Amino acid sequence: MRISMIFGGMSYEHEISVVSAIALSQKLETKIKYYIFLDSTHNFYLIELNDMRSKYFSSGAYSKAQPLEIGKNGFYIKGMLGKKKLLDIGILLNLIHGADGEDGVLSGVFEFFRIPFIGPSLEASVLSYNKHFTKLYANRQGISTLPFILHKRGESLPDIQEFPVIIKPVRLGSSIGISVVEDVKNLEYALDVAYEFDNEVIIESFIRGIKEYNIAGAKIDNQFVLSVIEEPTKKDLLDFNDKYLDFSRTEKIVSAQISQNLQHDIKSAFQKIYSSVFDGALIRCDFFVCNDKLYLNEINPVPGSMANYLFEDFWSVIERLSGSLPIRQSIATNYHYIDKIHQAKGK
Amino acid sequence: MRISMIFGGMSYEHEISVVSAIALSQKLETKIKYYIFLDSTHNFYLIELNDMRSKYFSSGAYSKAQPLEIGKNGFYIKGMLGKKKLLDIGILLNLIHGADGEDGVLSGVFEFFRIPFIGPSLEASVLSYNKHFTKLYANRQGISTLPFILHKRGESLPDIQEFPVIIKPVRLGSSIGISVVEDVKNLEYALDVAYEFDNEVIIESFIRGIKEYNIAGAKIDNQFVLSVIEEPTKKDLLDFNDKYLDFSRTEKIVSAQISQNLQHDIKSAFQKIYSSVFDGALIRCDFFVCNDKLYLNEINPVPGSMANYLFEDFWSVIERLSGSLPIRQSIATNYHYIDKIHQAKGK
Repeated sequence: MRISMIFGGMSYEHEISVVSAIALSQKLETKIKYYIFLDSTHNFYLIELNDMRSKYFSSGAYSKAQPLEIGKNGFYIKGMLGKKKLLDIGILLNLIHGADGEDGVLSGVFEFFRIPFIGPSLEASVLSYNKHFTKLYANRQGISTLPFILHKRGESLPDIQEFPVIIKPVRLGSSIGISVVEDVKNLEYALDVAYEFDNEVIIESFIRGIKEYNIAGAKIDNQFVLSVIEEPTKKDLLDFNDKYLDFSRTEKIVSAQISQNLQHDIKSAFQKIYSSVFDGALIRCDFFVCNDKLYLNEINPVPGSMANYLFEDFWSVIERLSGSLPIRQSIATNYHYIDKIHQAKGK
Repeated sequence: MRISMIFGGMSYEHEISVVSAIALSQKLETKIKYYIFLDSTHNFYLIELNDMRSKYFSSGAYSKAQPLEIGKNGFYIKGMLGKKKLLDIGILLNLIHGADGEDGVLSGVFEFFRIPFIGPSLEASVLSYNKHFTKLYANRQGISTLPFILHKRGESLPDIQEFPVIIKPVRLGSSIGISVVEDVKNLEYALDVAYEFDNEVIIESFIRGIKEYNIAGAKIDNQFVLSVIEEPTKKDLLDFNDKYLDFSRTEKIVSAQISQNLQHDIKSAFQKIYSSVFDGALIRCDFFVCNDKLYLNEINPVPGSMANYLFEDFWSVIERLSGSLPIRQSIATNYHYIDKIHQAKGK
């Protein structure tokens, strides 16, 4: 199965996607058929493997690469005699983090043009991109989430009894707009920052030193393929720099040292979240454990460098997943009703 | 403000969209700048006003119309010397019912290509297209919905105490796949029918003769513009034929004869549902009243012929709405982090 990679996008995480794609390209190299870059004004370019260096993008050199156009069933190269199809792109691996890649926009575009892809469907994107819907969805699936206040632009300041709290724009994928607030004095400012990016904000208790566990996986041929469970060693809150480094990881990690029971609970919770909603995607779920209780923190439907470092044989997971994508029903149109009415009218 | 209309789509409601667009074209005529048809294999065509007749589509004559390509900021005509932009399309009025138009696929495509449109955003589409999410969302907004069972493909037959029930695929916009089941004998068959179209099914009590009220509206410049409230006179369940006729309505209706209180409750519930999630769309909400309690039945984010018959001055609503569409933040990419890392490395 051929696999091509798409990265970039019009998003606050554009750079993170570039870094994430470069990291993965160093691991996968020629296993990936084509590297396709989406610049921040929505132009597509075909990138040579040896141009997969960050400077190539930051310097703007990419703009001399082969431009592509998206269209029915794939990508096209403009030539003297019209458009020529880019052959055998196979399955597109969506490595665009944040807007475009995780908010459903590109899922819509790929579905429209019938381009098969590894990544979240439109519905799965909306559920994971909107942090409030993630909570509603997780709760429906029987998985707990931390208690929160949903605050909307223009509402009066919420009455918060216990600090610290963490403030997050409802719809942003990256660390931008997120802050930890230690006391009521800083609340208004933190809300203002978050409202730069969204009209709705989630306010959650911030539990310092809470245990965090990450697990990635996918459903392949109706069986779950799960990664090891990682206990990320990290600071209270990743800033953009940390996240940037985090997204370029390729080194394997060691499994978290946790009880069989907790392992089982985390795996089972992952499967309930994945359900059939995330069919076709390789996702990473980040969980908290607090007072022996498991909470879903967030769903990353396009995890940094595809969480390759969590898998023993990452490439085989991607290959097998690409052969097990959900099939979109095709719908035949026959004008049966219109014809019937015309017959009834005698014309 | 110029407005163009798009209709058709790859969906079970393709014909309904054609009929809906034709009905509206007879009302709006040259007020609409361009009529753009999306056929069921995702080709776009520019349709002349006097070809807006059902036979033109059912006979396949449309395939001789001017083909269009979708691209950045609009539609293009292929010419001898490359592509020529279709000028001044203005705002696209999305009149595609069901898949493509209401499931978020075209919202994604229009957002990607930066084509402004009247219709549900991607997020609003997912919430209204998935009947289960509609319930979760309505409940979060403080609006009740009828109790239900969510049944998934492969699960054992549900134990239902009271009949009749209505069975609906979770994700289909049209009447297809929906049935009313009078007794346990017919349950399995009805589920089988619904599972032809989705992997999840909603089973709800079917309350014969329940009062139904429809209201349409939009938020324009932060103020709600609401239609009259209609009490549709109809059969228990619209079949596809009824729906077909329903979607071609252009005659004004009389307001439902209901108390001031109920009017107030329906309007208030509509506004809570619309919230800011449906900004940019003209939607119709269908409510039930049972034992004096109001329930949301469904949200139509692209109502049949845009529910024009519910408004005193439909065109002015559309014009004003087209001037009040949500603005998508544009995101500048500056490679700030990549550059910083290169500087740190001294290259």
